[in-house]
Amino acid sequence: MGIVTRDLRPSPITPTVDFSRDGVQHGFLKLPYSHDQSAWGSVMIPVTVVKRGDGPTALLTGGNHGDEYEGPVALLKLANDLKMEDVAGRVIIVPAMNFPAFQAGRRTSPIDAGNLNRSFPGKPDGTATQKIADYFQRTLLPLADIVLDFHSGGKTLDFVPFAAAHLLPDQRQQAQCVAAMEAFSAPYSMMMLEIDSVGMYDSAAEEMGKVFVTTELGGGGTATAQTIAIAERGVRNVLKHAGILSGEPDRVPGIRMDMPGPECFTTAEDDGILEMCVDLGEPVRSGELVARIHPMGRTGLAAREYRAGLDGILAARHFPGIIRTGDTLAVVAVRL
Amino acid sequence: MGIVTRDLRPSPITPTVDFSRDGVQHGFLKLPYSHDQSAWGSVMIPVTVVKRGDGPTALLTGGNHGDEYEGPVALLKLANDLKMEDVAGRVIIVPAMNFPAFQAGRRTSPIDAGNLNRSFPGKPDGTATQKIADYFQRTLLPLADIVLDFHSGGKTLDFVPFAAAHLLPDQRQQAQCVAAMEAFSAPYSMMMLEIDSVGMYDSAAEEMGKVFVTTELGGGGTATAQTIAIAERGVRNVLKHAGILSGEPDRVPGIRMDMPGPECFTTAEDDGILEMCVDLGEPVRSGELVARIHPMGRTGLAAREYRAGLDGILAARHFPGIIRTGDTLAVVAVRL
Amino acid sequence: MGIVTRDLRPSPITPTVDFSRDGVQHGFLKLPYSHDQSAWGSVMIPVTVVKRGDGPTALLTGGNHGDEYEGPVALLKLANDLKMEDVAGRVIIVPAMNFPAFQAGRRTSPIDAGNLNRSFPGKPDGTATQKIADYFQRTLLPLADIVLDFHSGGKTLDFVPFAAAHLLPDQRQQAQCVAAMEAFSAPYSMMMLEIDSVGMYDSAAEEMGKVFVTTELGGGGTATAQTIAIAERGVRNVLKHAGILSGEPDRVPGIRMDMPGPECFTTAEDDGILEMCVDLGEPVRSGELVARIHPMGRTGLAAREYRAGLDGILAARHFPGIIRTGDTLAVVAVRL
Amino acid sequence: MGIVTRDLRPSPITPTVDFSRDGVQHGFLKLPYSHDQSAWGSVMIPVTVVKRGDGPTALLTGGNHGDEYEGPVALLKLANDLKMEDVAGRVIIVPAMNFPAFQAGRRTSPIDAGNLNRSFPGKPDGTATQKIADYFQRTLLPLADIVLDFHSGGKTLDFVPFAAAHLLPDQRQQAQCVAAMEAFSAPYSMMMLEIDSVGMYDSAAEEMGKVFVTTELGGGGTATAQTIAIAERGVRNVLKHAGILSGEPDRVPGIRMDMPGPECFTTAEDDGILEMCVDLGEPVRSGELVARIHPMGRTGLAAREYRAGLDGILAARHFPGIIRTGDTLAVVAVRL
Amino acid sequence: MGIVTRDLRPSPITPTVDFSRDGVQHGFLKLPYSHDQSAWGSVMIPVTVVKRGDGPTALLTGGNHGDEYEGPVALLKLANDLKMEDVAGRVIIVPAMNFPAFQAGRRTSPIDAGNLNRSFPGKPDGTATQKIADYFQRTLLPLADIVLDFHSGGKTLDFVPFAAAHLLPDQRQQAQCVAAMEAFSAPYSMMMLEIDSVGMYDSAAEEMGKVFVTTELGGGGTATAQTIAIAERGVRNVLKHAGILSGEPDRVPGIRMDMPGPECFTTAEDDGILEMCVDLGEPVRSGELVARIHPMGRTGLAAREYRAGLDGILAARHFPGIIRTGDTLAVVAVRL
Amino acid sequence: MGIVTRDLRPSPITPTVDFSRDGVQHGFLKLPYSHDQSAWGSVMIPVTVVKRGDGPTALLTGGNHGDEYEGPVALLKLANDLKMEDVAGRVIIVPAMNFPAFQAGRRTSPIDAGNLNRSFPGKPDGTATQKIADYFQRTLLPLADIVLDFHSGGKTLDFVPFAAAHLLPDQRQQAQCVAAMEAFSAPYSMMMLEIDSVGMYDSAAEEMGKVFVTTELGGGGTATAQTIAIAERGVRNVLKHAGILSGEPDRVPGIRMDMPGPECFTTAEDDGILEMCVDLGEPVRSGELVARIHPMGRTGLAAREYRAGLDGILAARHFPGIIRTGDTLAVVAVRL
Repeated sequence: MGIVTRDLRPSPITPTVDFSRDGVQHGFLKLPYSHDQSAWGSVMIPVTVVKRGDGPTALLTGGNHGDEYEGPVALLKLANDLKMEDVAGRVIIVPAMNFPAFQAGRRTSPIDAGNLNRSFPGKPDGTATQKIADYFQRTLLPLADIVLDFHSGGKTLDFVPFAAAHLLPDQRQQAQCVAAMEAFSAPYSMMMLEIDSVGMYDSAAEEMGKVFVTTELGGGGTATAQTIAIAERGVRNVLKHAGILSGEPDRVPGIRMDMPGPECFTTAEDDGILEMCVDLGEPVRSGELVARIHPMGRTGLAAREYRAGLDGILAARHFPGIIRTGDTLAVVAVRL
Repeated sequence: MGIVTRDLRPSPITPTVDFSRDGVQHGFLKLPYSHDQSAWGSVMIPVTVVKRGDGPTALLTGGNHGDEYEGPVALLKLANDLKMEDVAGRVIIVPAMNFPAFQAGRRTSPIDAGNLNRSFPGKPDGTATQKIADYFQRTLLPLADIVLDFHSGGKTLDFVPFAAAHLLPDQRQQAQCVAAMEAFSAPYSMMMLEIDSVGMYDSAAEEMGKVFVTTELGGGGTATAQTIAIAERGVRNVLKHAGILSGEPDRVPGIRMDMPGPECFTTAEDDGILEMCVDLGEPVRSGELVARIHPMGRTGLAAREYRAGLDGILAARHFPGIIRTGDTLAVVAVRL
Repeated sequence: MGIVTRDLRPSPITPTVDFSRDGVQHGFLKLPYSHDQSAWGSVMIPVTVVKRGDGPTALLTGGNHGDEYEGPVALLKLANDLKMEDVAGRVIIVPAMNFPAFQAGRRTSPIDAGNLNRSFPGKPDGTATQKIADYFQRTLLPLADIVLDFHSGGKTLDFVPFAAAHLLPDQRQQAQCVAAMEAFSAPYSMMMLEIDSVGMYDSAAEEMGKVFVTTELGGGGTATAQTIAIAERGVRNVLKHAGILSGEPDRVPGIRMDMPGPECFTTAEDDGILEMCVDLGEPVRSGELVARIHPMGRTGLAAREYRAGLDGILAARHFPGIIRTGDTLAVVAVRL
Repeated sequence: MGIVTRDLRPSPITPTVDFSRDGVQHGFLKLPYSHDQSAWGSVMIPVTVVKRGDGPTALLTGGNHGDEYEGPVALLKLANDLKMEDVAGRVIIVPAMNFPAFQAGRRTSPIDAGNLNRSFPGKPDGTATQKIADYFQRTLLPLADIVLDFHSGGKTLDFVPFAAAHLLPDQRQQAQCVAAMEAFSAPYSMMMLEIDSVGMYDSAAEEMGKVFVTTELGGGGTATAQTIAIAERGVRNVLKHAGILSGEPDRVPGIRMDMPGPECFTTAEDDGILEMCVDLGEPVRSGELVARIHPMGRTGLAAREYRAGLDGILAARHFPGIIRTGDTLAVVAVRL
Repeated sequence: MGIVTRDLRPSPITPTVDFSRDGVQHGFLKLPYSHDQSAWGSVMIPVTVVKRGDGPTALLTGGNHGDEYEGPVALLKLANDLKMEDVAGRVIIVPAMNFPAFQAGRRTSPIDAGNLNRSFPGKPDGTATQKIADYFQRTLLPLADIVLDFHSGGKTLDFVPFAAAHLLPDQRQQAQCVAAMEAFSAPYSMMMLEIDSVGMYDSAAEEMGKVFVTTELGGGGTATAQTIAIAERGVRNVLKHAGILSGEPDRVPGIRMDMPGPECFTTAEDDGILEMCVDLGEPVRSGELVARIHPMGRTGLAAREYRAGLDGILAARHFPGIIRTGDTLAVVAVRL
Repeated sequence: MGIVTRDLRPSPITPTVDFSRDGVQHGFLKLPYSHDQSAWGSVMIPVTVVKRGDGPTALLTGGNHGDEYEGPVALLKLANDLKMEDVAGRVIIVPAMNFPAFQAGRRTSPIDAGNLNRSFPGKPDGTATQKIADYFQRTLLPLADIVLDFHSGGKTLDFVPFAAAHLLPDQRQQAQCVAAMEAFSAPYSMMMLEIDSVGMYDSAAEEMGKVFVTTELGGGGTATAQTIAIAERGVRNVLKHAGILSGEPDRVPGIRMDMPGPECFTTAEDDGILEMCVDLGEPVRSGELVARIHPMGRTGLAAREYRAGLDGILAARHFPGIIRTGDTLAVVAVRL
């Protein structure tokens, strides 16, 4: 465990808040960005710090992808509501990590097409997205004891609402993460074995030994009263679990799921209109029809059928009505 | 009542099917379109005709807006399934009226930004969208006895699933439309008084005295197994109701709603992140908090609150997580 | 003289203010606009009305072109500062007539490329820009006695700061306009004979018999403390001149200019880099070198020279460093 | 026969040449165009007039579509070479009618997507393309006795090189056009019955009783030494035929073709990669394989075959390697 | 000779075919690609493997640049036609290496503007184009004994049809490549000394000691029946030459050419319309006029003349009618 | 002092001039650039060399950012005017270093969004902008004794006109730079301590021990007769100072300024319309109101006020009327 020492130039990002000061501060992470619309411009990423004394630090983030809204809404509300006297320790809130993507309502940054969650550990002299990753990698993550990063499906995926922890080499760390995931208390909980974790914020945090919880709370590029409520309860539960807020987590019963392997995923091999035959949360059997793809340009042509690869429940689906070859059509997870 | 006689040049659209021939035909409505990518190109709108004998004609349409998918899926499947011997009369199916918009997954046409449902009666020498409207106005609508046009909310709105009829000056025609709406048997049914019906396909059909049913079956630019099932049942029910398919409509109990006036609509007066406080189908009281809009660029700012203008149920909402000033945020309908 | 009666459908624009009510109201002109980003969206044009009693009405407008800033700044400040008790009569303030263009920082609307000042009298069922023109034509202009419309050069032109009146067929009306222009008291004043006045807001107002003043107060897509001060003094002076504000106009000495004919204008016949040889406000003699255009792609090529067509002062110039064939390079006005 | 009198405002286009003056003049047709890149800008369409005495007038045009190059090259060279003493009468040369399209290398105008050859008779207060059409309709065509308009296939079509005349109601006029087409002396000559001649420059000229010749001299958005030579010989031949240049046309033997009806045209009903099985100028038999379209997204799928609708020679083909549903794939003409 | 060992992470690309299995398999090379239109999307590159026993392996590729069509057409047809029993050894067919470019009809990838043929050896964690290069570098090229890569001029160049081999340091390898080039039997054959071979697939293959043949079979972004026939004969000839297909290559007489040095290339130093004075395949003498460039914006200006730098034949030319400073205008090759 | 030795491949850029030859040469720096619009294209950067004998070499550059015009105009004129006999030594003139940006009128390159002045030392196998930087780094800078690089504010900033030198570790070099800055003799002179000098051409030149002068001569994306005159006088003064031109610099009195630290800079924390309350060159006191930002979407809202951080003069400002969060609003410099 520990931070890899790299000989890098300092981050170009400067905060307008003082992370070591007690109180409530609202400010920015200021990233210089010279471009055609502003020769001496900056990206200004909103940040809130609430601190009292020397307790543990929670780093709470949303907008890692810019089109996922439960996290930003819950965190903007928390940032406005938290008072210094509420906390024992420190809460650092960044409701929109990849702020340019968030402003644009896009998964990736309009500046450099950067997917922040594939950009870690980042570079201080790279693209804007890489500079943001580097700042979290070298400045914010080291300050944290526990990290909660909010995700949803964004404009192109939809999920049953779950919190998740990863299988980790360190059993003790994994147990801490699972405990935090359980404290979050989403309707579903998922043990994830990431197939390709290179460049993820999750891995960056976990490799530093942090307690890390992530979520997928819905999708489609929207948020509902229901999924926002899950996010709000979850973040307060995690802060209580960490001892930063007082009181016990408000736990509700949920469903535990597992993604055992690549057969969970169905990939489209056709372009066309997607007809889902099963909805999110419904059970499916191996070989059962999950979806059809209909050609768009003619009537009278056969649709292609897609079938489940294992028994389970439909945990995720492609969201838009149009689907392209190579898109992940469905994810079937196993109910534990 | 009847078609307004206008002295217009012929439509440039030619069908590759013969509407007067018995049998099942799959073909195109061919609209010449000369552009930079094809000097002698055409828009090819898929069409299916199933005809047997001299019974009534149903005109079934989807893709009036190109990002609404229940109609196209149900109609593509119907076009593939219907056999000549199934029908008494004629079924004309156009799953994607504004085909360029449908191909692009957009509400409006990428060719001319045309909103087909504001383009009636169209022009034979206008834009591509106006030419399509004109072809429906002067060629297809006159062939029809009953017209079913599928809508959903598209990428930017979401609705509780309903079929709808309009208040019409002709009580007898209105009663026929209401009967067809009831035969459709969606979970909700809506009596709509369109505030601005100028240019709508609905008005064009109704002014010709046709029996007309429209729907809003969901939204967000997607479709679910559930909303597709509503569409499939609905279209077969309408064809049974019209006597074109044999058998009785498969009726299920539903909720009748009304939109009494402009106080149903809540308009955003802020840009920001939308926090819905009530979900679709839930009851609201006049004055109750329906939503908040949070500023995107800073933490620590107050959100603006939006409240219901009357008692009812939340029938529609803005779908994307980001909302702009002037967007319709919510529609509250009265339960009858 | 008077408004041409046209048999048109009502404007789709509805105000959220009541023009007949005493007091200070801030609201919107709401124009429904259905598009791919918002199926049920609207353009919301900010408007302020300050009214006390039955005195004359001044209609004060900026943002007719969206990249001209002296007017919007002066009018936003005036709208915030004016109190009901300050006025005798009514002041209607629309700081950004073509609001979509203003938001985009463009001369023309990003919705339809509409140049509002070439779109009068507008159409209630036309483009968004034509709908705005129609609303001014049929609703706001008829309410006004005196109209002040702020212009500057925008991103592509720069002017010496002047107020202007037009030569009009009605001598009495022209004298009233000149008196209002003089009351504005800009550093320069211009008698303009518009070469092509078709579609202009100016003509629309003048044809209704209104007292009309326009300005060109700088340019380049910016505003300075100096040009904003001219605008602020000018608008208060005009309101005093009209008797709506109390007190006498704050008059400063200025220079009177005239544009006698097409020889005032120099048009580029080359693409390249513009080298001005005379600056705004400087005197030039007929035949004197005004500018050179240098080819961009090679060194060692001769620049083309452009010379003045008459004696006068340089009143306007092409602003950007790059100029294209057909651009107006310079305007030389005659000092009276 | 004659010009339809229409009560229109004057054209906004002003020429910088004097069409009634003897001599050689190079100048512009200046069309005011206010846009975001130039508030007081213009489109400047190059024009050359060569005049001596009172003989007939030839109007020579290219760039009606902006991606067709034989005409512009031949006309730019002719404009540079012609001396006043060479001509008896008047030659008006506009090498690039739709100059914005020509500059952009596009079929249609980048300003308004206007296809000039579908925009006649144009409008003086319409789009830029309509204003150009109107200027030809009301100013230039009336000056002409004989009109030669150069076309090729542009970026998306390729043709065997031919000159063409239309079937006309007036037999005498048709015979004059055929004689001029024969004088042009391209390798192929075509009698065309336009299926949709609405909006064409050809029709506008013919309806005024002008002798009109058009061409299709190749395509693909390029020109070869060979096709340019055809254009250069052709334009001088036509001027000799008209008596404006001295000497006899340089006639070479050619092939006469006819397009008897819609069966000449083959339309793609698939998207994919185009495999031509016959090349331009080669003979085909009715039912013979002309082309295949291969799906792009997979191997192992069958290609769709397209067959000739009549005996003839391949006169035109879709040029780009990718073809879309609705594109004209091939034209088979009958050899006379 | 040999593969440079590099310590790299595994390729993210996974094939859906098994290269070691006998039989005919059609499938995909699946490259995960997360983007705004599909959070969990993939690029799916079609691939066919035909294998019987342990003979040599031919790797056949097209679509290295996405706007070159002879290769994809010939390879799609070959993939559909080849049967397991036809081959002795293995044929791996990738008709469109840079599949995103091929789908877009562009030279370079629309994802990252990557020119695949300047991206070798690639990077497993780089751009999509670099990932594709890496997969060929480390997975497919090592499997091959002989490599045939199809090129043409694409949308902006046109060539006489030739196969080519490179001058190589290893005389024995070079002789094998020349023998394969001769077996291909195109109308022209070229010995190429690449001026800048850094990043090319050619170099990657040759540095591994593979027998490598490339081609330039036409251009303009199209393909003709004639050039496709050359490609189809060539690929079968090469497979026969390699002993994978039975029988002797079908050899036809051709012309051998050489590009001795930089004087072969003529570069445009002007923007304008290109007038070729010599066509492809025609002889030129040193100093002879090859082309003119005409200014686009005015008539009456002199064109710039471009002359040949050596005696030879015109082997390549700029294709589009518009040419820009810096574009390669012509290539004159020496006939051996 | 000295060039860092790096083991790099040669630059792909080749000059068409010979830097070692006496005389006046106009030519290009030719950078191969293969792209969709030209498979074998090049970027052609104009360059002039004037050389006589063995005296010192001045490297004169403009267009480092493509929207700054004083440098290009002055250098294009100088390139046309300088005769071999005028100079003792060598003058290398590159009026537009980042030529693609210059052609596009943009700060950064349209090819790769590269900001040339943040791209040093560049890469011979990187982006086009990095290749240009590398060529200056390894080829042109080593040839120079004195380097003058022209800047202005570009489209988004405006400056009082100044020449500048940097604080350098080598006092002797700094004194030489200050002397050259004083010789330039702009109205203002600035001692700059760059906050972030990584990647700048300035640093590259200074690290090689060159005498380096830079400027900021205005801005807004334009140039005036006055600022061009400053540039022309300055460049000749520097050449005289270096002994390359004969005669004494034409010195005029100026104002010396200093930027002591980050408190010079005011950053916008709001989006809106910018109201400057002080103009360029005017004195301000610490705490004095410098500007307001007005919200764009409503009337009746308070503007945010921005105040000076120290006593000084307004040396720079944001230029466009619209300002965004993170843009540098104003720079206050201290008058020495």
